[in-house]
Amino acid sequence: MAEESYTFSLVRVDLARGVSRREEIDSGLLLKFLGGRGLGAKILFDEQIPGTEPFSPDNRLLFLTSPLIGSGAPWCVKYTVSTRSPLTGTILMSLAGGFFGAALRASGFDGLIIEGQAAEPCYLWLHDGQVEFREARHLWGLETQRVQEVILGETGDKRARVACIGPAGEKGVRFSCIVSGTRAAGRGGAGAVMGSKNLKAVAASGRARVPILDPQGFRRINEAIRTRARNAERLRLFGRYGTPKNLVIVNERGLFPTRNFREGVFEGIDKVNAMEQQRRVLRKVTCHACPVSCGNMTRAAEGPYRGIVTEGPEYETFWAFGAQCGNQDIDAIIAADRLCDELGLDTISTGNVIGFAMECAEKGLITSRDLEGLDLSFGNHSAMLEMVRRIARREGIGDFLAEGTLRAAQKIGKEALGLAMQVKGLELPAYDPRGAKAMGIEFATSPRGGCHERGLVSRETFGAPPPIDPLAVEGKGGAAKEVQDETAVLDSLGICVFPPHNDGMDMADAAALLSAVLGQQVSEEDLWLAGERVWNLERLFNLREGFRREHDTLPPRLLKEPMPAGPAAGNVVELNLLLADYYTVRGWDERGVPTLEKLAQLGLSEEGSRVLPCPR
Amino acid sequence: MAEESYTFSLVRVDLARGVSRREEIDSGLLLKFLGGRGLGAKILFDEQIPGTEPFSPDNRLLFLTSPLIGSGAPWCVKYTVSTRSPLTGTILMSLAGGFFGAALRASGFDGLIIEGQAAEPCYLWLHDGQVEFREARHLWGLETQRVQEVILGETGDKRARVACIGPAGEKGVRFSCIVSGTRAAGRGGAGAVMGSKNLKAVAASGRARVPILDPQGFRRINEAIRTRARNAERLRLFGRYGTPKNLVIVNERGLFPTRNFREGVFEGIDKVNAMEQQRRVLRKVTCHACPVSCGNMTRAAEGPYRGIVTEGPEYETFWAFGAQCGNQDIDAIIAADRLCDELGLDTISTGNVIGFAMECAEKGLITSRDLEGLDLSFGNHSAMLEMVRRIARREGIGDFLAEGTLRAAQKIGKEALGLAMQVKGLELPAYDPRGAKAMGIEFATSPRGGCHERGLVSRETFGAPPPIDPLAVEGKGGAAKEVQDETAVLDSLGICVFPPHNDGMDMADAAALLSAVLGQQVSEEDLWLAGERVWNLERLFNLREGFRREHDTLPPRLLKEPMPAGPAAGNVVELNLLLADYYTVRGWDERGVPTLEKLAQLGLSEEGSRVLPCPR
Repeated sequence: MAEESYTFSLVRVDLARGVSRREEIDSGLLLKFLGGRGLGAKILFDEQIPGTEPFSPDNRLLFLTSPLIGSGAPWCVKYTVSTRSPLTGTILMSLAGGFFGAALRASGFDGLIIEGQAAEPCYLWLHDGQVEFREARHLWGLETQRVQEVILGETGDKRARVACIGPAGEKGVRFSCIVSGTRAAGRGGAGAVMGSKNLKAVAASGRARVPILDPQGFRRINEAIRTRARNAERLRLFGRYGTPKNLVIVNERGLFPTRNFREGVFEGIDKVNAMEQQRRVLRKVTCHACPVSCGNMTRAAEGPYRGIVTEGPEYETFWAFGAQCGNQDIDAIIAADRLCDELGLDTISTGNVIGFAMECAEKGLITSRDLEGLDLSFGNHSAMLEMVRRIARREGIGDFLAEGTLRAAQKIGKEALGLAMQVKGLELPAYDPRGAKAMGIEFATSPRGGCHERGLVSRETFGAPPPIDPLAVEGKGGAAKEVQDETAVLDSLGICVFPPHNDGMDMADAAALLSAVLGQQVSEEDLWLAGERVWNLERLFNLREGFRREHDTLPPRLLKEPMPAGPAAGNVVELNLLLADYYTVRGWDERGVPTLEKLAQLGLSEEGSRVLPCPR
Repeated sequence: MAEESYTFSLVRVDLARGVSRREEIDSGLLLKFLGGRGLGAKILFDEQIPGTEPFSPDNRLLFLTSPLIGSGAPWCVKYTVSTRSPLTGTILMSLAGGFFGAALRASGFDGLIIEGQAAEPCYLWLHDGQVEFREARHLWGLETQRVQEVILGETGDKRARVACIGPAGEKGVRFSCIVSGTRAAGRGGAGAVMGSKNLKAVAASGRARVPILDPQGFRRINEAIRTRARNAERLRLFGRYGTPKNLVIVNERGLFPTRNFREGVFEGIDKVNAMEQQRRVLRKVTCHACPVSCGNMTRAAEGPYRGIVTEGPEYETFWAFGAQCGNQDIDAIIAADRLCDELGLDTISTGNVIGFAMECAEKGLITSRDLEGLDLSFGNHSAMLEMVRRIARREGIGDFLAEGTLRAAQKIGKEALGLAMQVKGLELPAYDPRGAKAMGIEFATSPRGGCHERGLVSRETFGAPPPIDPLAVEGKGGAAKEVQDETAVLDSLGICVFPPHNDGMDMADAAALLSAVLGQQVSEEDLWLAGERVWNLERLFNLREGFRREHDTLPPRLLKEPMPAGPAAGNVVELNLLLADYYTVRGWDERGVPTLEKLAQLGLSEEGSRVLPCPR
């Protein structure tokens, strides 16, 4: 192994004063938190005073990578955005693939800590170890593709990549996202935080090479992974269709939420699925350093949306503007996907909140007057698309829905609260946990609210081998914890989760890659411990912000209304049983608070002492 | 000085499990935080996870005394109640005179840490070093005087003293208080926290003698203070009339809030003042160990309220149900005072919220339908009294007002918010800071919200010698800090603030008393430093709960509407200037965050490290 020391450095940018400075990350810190999500959690935890409002200039916005991003190792691609969420008030980490992460490292910075608020719209141009503050009044109001084109022109650098917000982020829509290329750091409203700082975009480019301290070892493991991947049948299949291949699977398992989670089987599945999409796919789309290329560039084929092109839609978007809104028109979904990308809206939250509004309208909780005449019935896709626009512009009732499902429901009244399919304010995605019980744990405990991405037990939802009974309660605490910790490692290293979930690589590969890059032995066990550490640190952050066991919950519909039909018929989520098991497996007390022993084991005693009661 | 070591011990009570255990307070901790308010802040800061909801079983409720209480030294009498406030979400310390503090120490305990929630209504009976849990279903619903009578009968101990809640505390009225004798730990809703724990009362009695390690020194300083007090003319005058003597003074200075702070001069002052009260006084009332006896037992003389007897009203109550509600009927105020004591309501918040509702009604923001026909016009005292009852019972609009002025205004709408005379949710008391600028600082920065009691600059509001110009801005930061720190010492030692503000004693006396009791030299400087330490620790607690510079504010009326007439005519509060001065004097940064240097100077580095950003 090399003697050379590894450096990982961030740039801290103060938008109010227009200054920046480079900061080295101590290697001990890097080994503990890896990068990306983990490092972001540590920085937010250390630097933010509890109660910092998401739209306060004091709320940090972090763009981070890891030592693996840009190394050329397969699937080491995702940059992360960390901040306190304006939608949930929890810690937020969102990530995105594409090419921005690699471009950021090439610019000479491994990450970005953004503080303060600019007086006027601006963007940052990072290149060759320099930070330029550029004014962006002419970009304000522009949609995301146009913004990227204009900035690319202004930099004169064809290799530059731009992460930006659309009109929704500028307007503070609480579920607005950050877009780079056509990939979004989607959930939880990081776009609105960026908008609150008057920051329209970050552009990055350069020729910096990422350090690899053991190049020989790195080449060896890199090649081994790629060779294995070529022979992984599940991965090949995944690459062919991408995430939409799961539409039929999840629907067949009866846990595909339909019309705001009233049902679990969607009657329109024959019209909205991967095969129907494939008829419209123009070409496959890839991220940096990916031998799989799961993305699809898709063109709407029929009706009023004919000719609209989008990258995607992904599984979740097919659901959000499909089953959730009772819509069977696949071309309308393609149009909605494109519209959300352009406006800078998270498709899951947008579709979820519109489905919620549709149920409210059906029940008379929202009136035709509230809707200014719009017929927001389930299945009316032109109304659905119009509502997407109103949300982004905060027009009429769109202004209301732009606050998210929970806040909208609180304003409408008690009955609407029962229809809000969210946890901690984050709109639920396309799995009904009445038919997949570990997903119930995941929704209830995920650090950023009702999310599937921080611990998707594929063995349960998709029947990945070896499959487990989705309806069983027993053992689900352990299954959830394992995938959560694994995902925390992947998110921190910036590794796409799909290949590890499809026989593409495993934790030993990740450890070998990291060892080679850092020039220092990192074991599989070290990584598992780091993943658990990250999860617990996020828990401490949320505890400090007032989140408690009672917030680890699910909408009443999932706890009390049995699934009406399909394979999961008769089921509710037995949340108390599931959580008791899960807390025990986690080494948390019955209130969901990490024990001092657990924190000591994870090297988080100091962090714990900043949140938990002082022993006297 | 004595060699003996001083012991101060609390009992920790778990209401859910019905168990208790004794805990010694380390003498270093006692010297740093003194007792009462300071010790309460330290315990809450150390033991509570940020974001603990006020009505959560995890919210501690502390009854504390100090080494001086029960010693027989004059005015060392006040016990404190500390918890997280359900009205404001800030740290809350309320205190009360009377005899409960001395009785608590006589019971063999110097304080009480209450945790958890009892399954059924109960009360605690502390006597001779024992804790008894007693059931209280038969007491639930009873008013405070009756509760005390019944419990005294059940204990069979005539020396016992009882601190209890009334119906308002049981119903979770967010400004309900804790009453012992006729004295209330009034502000911020500690009564509702007690109610949420199903704890109706704490009774205490015993023959324990409080330790005094240097009895000779103690006798000497005790006698010196008493001798001096006999010759203090201002103190004598204060004792004769009590707090109501200030009614005329404050009104003449033009800062007596009238009709919800629309004006600063009350036209009814000739009918509502100390002389008018004196015609109705039956006898003077004293607290434990007080050579002054400022209290008044008062009987209503005329009209429908004739014959109603109350202890009080104090200055604030005369205002709350007088000028604030545009009411000139002194007997109605006496009736309202008695009613609040019986129901367990804080008179300041109750009168303030009713005056607020009167202005809302006048402006049509609350309709006659909301009021179920009640004519809630300014000056209608029978409607005012009826509203007190509805608030305590949470009937009709009373249920709404029971949430406090801020929450009620948030529900009514934006215009009402401008009429809510509160800071951080705590209803303002009887001073208009447009006519007394240091009071503006005090309202904006007081740890429990808009309160006058944590730093009343008498030289400004009452012209105590040497007087300062109430309308001046310059120097007010320093004046406010000085009194705030002094008050933090007095509150922590349990010393009544009135004698120190009326030439009765000073900080040197307090230091001498404490030195004698502890048998160890405590200097005046030590006490000043402790006061500043307590203030800063409370600031840290609130920072941790999300309170920021923007919460150090005042209602828009005081910032934007010039005082219409009187000596303060034309004035608003120049809050930005005042706060900038104050933060500088405090050693806080421009965001109102204590600097690391200031915290180190106060011995609060460890506490600071639990809240402030980690230096990297």
